[in-house]
Amino acid sequence: MSVTAPAGFVAGGVACGIKPGGGLDLALVATADGLAVPAAAVFTTNRAAAASVQVSRRHLTTSGGRAAGMVLSSGNANAATGARGVADVEEMAAAVAVGLGAGLDAHHVLVAQTGLIGIPLPMGPVRRGLPAVLADRSGDREASARAARAIMTTDTVQKEIVVHGSGFRVGAMAKGAAMLAPNMATMLAILTTDAVVDPHDLSAALSRAVSGTFNRLSVDGSMSTNDTVAILASGASGSTPAAAELADVLGQVCGQLARMMAEDAEGATKVAVVRVLRAVSDEEAHRAARQVAESQLVQCSLNGADPYWGRVVSELGAAGATFDLDRVSIEYGGVTVCRAGQGIDHDDVALAAHMAGRTVEITCDLGLGTGEAAVLTTDLGYGYIDENRTTS
Amino acid sequence: MSVTAPAGFVAGGVACGIKPGGGLDLALVATADGLAVPAAAVFTTNRAAAASVQVSRRHLTTSGGRAAGMVLSSGNANAATGARGVADVEEMAAAVAVGLGAGLDAHHVLVAQTGLIGIPLPMGPVRRGLPAVLADRSGDREASARAARAIMTTDTVQKEIVVHGSGFRVGAMAKGAAMLAPNMATMLAILTTDAVVDPHDLSAALSRAVSGTFNRLSVDGSMSTNDTVAILASGASGSTPAAAELADVLGQVCGQLARMMAEDAEGATKVAVVRVLRAVSDEEAHRAARQVAESQLVQCSLNGADPYWGRVVSELGAAGATFDLDRVSIEYGGVTVCRAGQGIDHDDVALAAHMAGRTVEITCDLGLGTGEAAVLTTDLGYGYIDENRTTS
Repeated sequence: MSVTAPAGFVAGGVACGIKPGGGLDLALVATADGLAVPAAAVFTTNRAAAASVQVSRRHLTTSGGRAAGMVLSSGNANAATGARGVADVEEMAAAVAVGLGAGLDAHHVLVAQTGLIGIPLPMGPVRRGLPAVLADRSGDREASARAARAIMTTDTVQKEIVVHGSGFRVGAMAKGAAMLAPNMATMLAILTTDAVVDPHDLSAALSRAVSGTFNRLSVDGSMSTNDTVAILASGASGSTPAAAELADVLGQVCGQLARMMAEDAEGATKVAVVRVLRAVSDEEAHRAARQVAESQLVQCSLNGADPYWGRVVSELGAAGATFDLDRVSIEYGGVTVCRAGQGIDHDDVALAAHMAGRTVEITCDLGLGTGEAAVLTTDLGYGYIDENRTTS
Repeated sequence: MSVTAPAGFVAGGVACGIKPGGGLDLALVATADGLAVPAAAVFTTNRAAAASVQVSRRHLTTSGGRAAGMVLSSGNANAATGARGVADVEEMAAAVAVGLGAGLDAHHVLVAQTGLIGIPLPMGPVRRGLPAVLADRSGDREASARAARAIMTTDTVQKEIVVHGSGFRVGAMAKGAAMLAPNMATMLAILTTDAVVDPHDLSAALSRAVSGTFNRLSVDGSMSTNDTVAILASGASGSTPAAAELADVLGQVCGQLARMMAEDAEGATKVAVVRVLRAVSDEEAHRAARQVAESQLVQCSLNGADPYWGRVVSELGAAGATFDLDRVSIEYGGVTVCRAGQGIDHDDVALAAHMAGRTVEITCDLGLGTGEAAVLTTDLGYGYIDENRTTS
């Protein structure tokens, strides 16, 4: 299911040989009839954006926000690969356009890639794989599962979801591992919907959904060269949702995908939700929550199940948000450990039980205003280092 | 030697019982004659500043930049300890003022503390320790070594230095471990000089020295509640250095202390110097270098001796500094691995040899302007996690 759950979509996934181990590495999501439909995307703001991001951004502009499909590959980021990298992506888009249907241009195809940076894309395998993934496409459950597996890198589980709106559906698949940062993660997500919506409204709804979800997720503060969240809207349900409902459903989809990414982040043993309440503004609450969530020291404490709130206070004070230590309270899982900026007696047994769990909730009340935000993060332990110390 | 190398200073260090293990934990640096002399300090900008920072900042203002000594303790940060924490520091300063000499006020004594946040300072041990450390003070080499050891927390070696100017000397001791971040580290440094210099010029020279050294050091991006760099100037040499020479010598002292801190950072196996050249401004070069240096992914690669320059490019692109990927070159230890934004053939043997060393040099040429900066950091490995996952 996932991306083929909404009416009007097909998907496929094959192993073309980008990954040395022979795993699935080339995926396609497209309209079933090969026609271009309203499409939108949010891309990384990294100034070293990968070739696929440069090209897809241009294609959406040229097409006026319409696409017939997206081709995705894993194992090579095709970033820092110069003009050749861009030409390779253009070639992929053109080949997929020809394969999908008469009357399509290359700019009706989006491309997303993930993997190692700085290595030229092996086009031999890609050229052999494109006809195969086009042939593999179908509305079957198995085909969409293959597509979801074909975008995985260090993910340990495939990430798929379907959410039902009133008279329409939204499906999605995603990958994400380390480098899950504000302003998106090293993550790719492709959403499909059978709602009737024009490109402009689709883009607005997607941006709103991303800013409240993926942009509130931070594992290590790194922002990838390749981050892409895209959506295609077939209109096949015949239902035209209100803007608020569409944004809400997209937010649910992105929120659950973000949670799945945190749960499966490289080497993580815990997921933490850092909430900041009563900041002077939502923006300042977000800045403070992000500072706590991205702190290596806070993340190490999570790894050790140590409720060392002194590090949380220190990060709140360093965040640059308005701050008055005398007004700060901090809770772990509902157990208040700091009030008015000082430690207080608390239930050590309840606190230890909460810290031992898989999910830790850190709530910081700044006592100043009405601003609120939450950021999702993970612990930092041996597993993250094992995954990231070498690329071989 | 160190802080007692310049003429006119005494120091001492004792174990008073703040540290449960019985290690040295209370230090004093003071003028030999007990008179107040020109003094200056740079403090953390963390808004959750510890009691010692709040009080010392006020004392320097009240005294017009004069102090007769500084008392330092380790094992408890006395941060997030409310009004009681401030009163405890005031009591310490007052007791030391009485012990040092007639005519001194509490505001002629500075205080610096380091250790765990959020735990009230155990004043019983401190009250017993203050007369002991006052009695211990002398110009002996052993006394200053005791002082340097008494400020250590997770440091593995004491950090002392003396630099000679023309006709004057500057001595210093410091501690630093994790939380070494831009805008200072969890670090304390106290400098002494026998140069003749007024408080205003002393403050200007110290600020300049700190901004080019401690503020260019980042281990984990965390900014402590307690960071303090202070200097006392006895004038006992009779030499009045030019402002430029004084700033230069202070810069040498702070630069070498910063390097010692990086070498001894918690669990680090490597020190890395990240240089950014040809940015559009020094400020942007610093921003870009800091982004690379603080990247958990780059730090993990250092731990694995993996010259994965793709992560460096990605962080440069994410830094917010002006950036054109097509103009970027990256070198590790003089071996160019990326030119014009793409990987190039290089000497793998020389590269592997450089990566295997204790110090790694990463140089990023942005090809845009004349801005330059360097930031010092370390790798991220099991050792950092072992040190920081629990406080017990």
